[in-house]
Amino acid sequence: MTQDDLQEERGGLVRLAMRLIERRGSEVSRAILASEAEIARSRIDAIFPEEDDLFQAILEDWYAPDIAIMEEVIESDLPIQRKFYEFFARRFAREMDRYRQDPAQFALYVELGTARLEQVRGYIDLADHYMSILVAEAQAEGFFADLKIDQAMSLINQMVICYTSPQVMMMLGDRLTEEKLGQIIDTLFAGLTAKKGGARGVASLKLA
Amino acid sequence: MTQDDLQEERGGLVRLAMRLIERRGSEVSRAILASEAEIARSRIDAIFPEEDDLFQAILEDWYAPDIAIMEEVIESDLPIQRKFYEFFARRFAREMDRYRQDPAQFALYVELGTARLEQVRGYIDLADHYMSILVAEAQAEGFFADLKIDQAMSLINQMVICYTSPQVMMMLGDRLTEEKLGQIIDTLFAGLTAKKGGARGVASLKLA
Repeated sequence: MTQDDLQEERGGLVRLAMRLIERRGSEVSRAILASEAEIARSRIDAIFPEEDDLFQAILEDWYAPDIAIMEEVIESDLPIQRKFYEFFARRFAREMDRYRQDPAQFALYVELGTARLEQVRGYIDLADHYMSILVAEAQAEGFFADLKIDQAMSLINQMVICYTSPQVMMMLGDRLTEEKLGQIIDTLFAGLTAKKGGARGVASLKLA
Repeated sequence: MTQDDLQEERGGLVRLAMRLIERRGSEVSRAILASEAEIARSRIDAIFPEEDDLFQAILEDWYAPDIAIMEEVIESDLPIQRKFYEFFARRFAREMDRYRQDPAQFALYVELGTARLEQVRGYIDLADHYMSILVAEAQAEGFFADLKIDQAMSLINQMVICYTSPQVMMMLGDRLTEEKLGQIIDTLFAGLTAKKGGARGVASLKLA
């Protein structure tokens, strides 16, 4: 069996496991996959040696297009503001499509991911890694002045969470638009610096 | 029985219902309240004529301090940037305290509120009403230039959702700080306008 055959078999099992998850409404173990697919358990175990490996393969499948989007945006020659926008907007559009196609199924995957946060964490960290490249690029052009990269990232992540968190996406639905995301990114580039404005610095609330 | 006596009895029943909810981990009906409190059902029904009235009274109790905060901030003579900050920060601090005191109990109330969103909606609308007063005041001073009030509110609500949504608060926990909220409010005042920046306007992603 060549490496390509193996990848193809693995891919087929992932797609089958996802169909099973969607039909059963819950996570699928290697044992269930073996019995439903009528494939010898030893074959499944050869491809997914540990129980976690099956879910890991599903996650890889789920996030592969997101990783491709992020890499494409970073390598593009767009202006930095536009890179930021595409970085979030293209993944948001994809998630929103998936959500609208089948809200119940989308909620199920979010639930499964929440239950296995330590495995999902790797992808969140990877997105943060790509984002740190964009933040450094923006700072080299003078934006987000005097903020440490970590500070800028934390603030930006909080301000765009509606467009990155599937949980928040499910809560807000149609109130989220690419136009608003663009306005938020423009606001960040125009206003986010370490400079203290009028919101902070007054010790206590003085009543009229 | 005077109006004061009635309010006191009502308040006592609300507190009792909340203790029952916390002990049982689920919503409490008037029937359960009557049997647990050993109060005649007719007495309970006189105070809460409809089943919804009991939950409505619990909601009133839950949100009363938030309403007091919002009214106090609006009537204060603080600079507008600081009003915005206090408007969100003081309610956030209170929610965060409640969450930290007992995360499981906090999650339970969030779950009950989610299940009765149409009743909670009134309080969300009220907070939006107060916020529209602040947005109008900010715009009169030249901030959020050329945005309609509804547009400005939607964008601001999305950018501070980490500090207003109990669901998001539970997800982010210690990553939320009043310092960061202040930085976000400063960013809004420095950068939020209708003016198009570089994030929008380019038709498609051009690759390097």
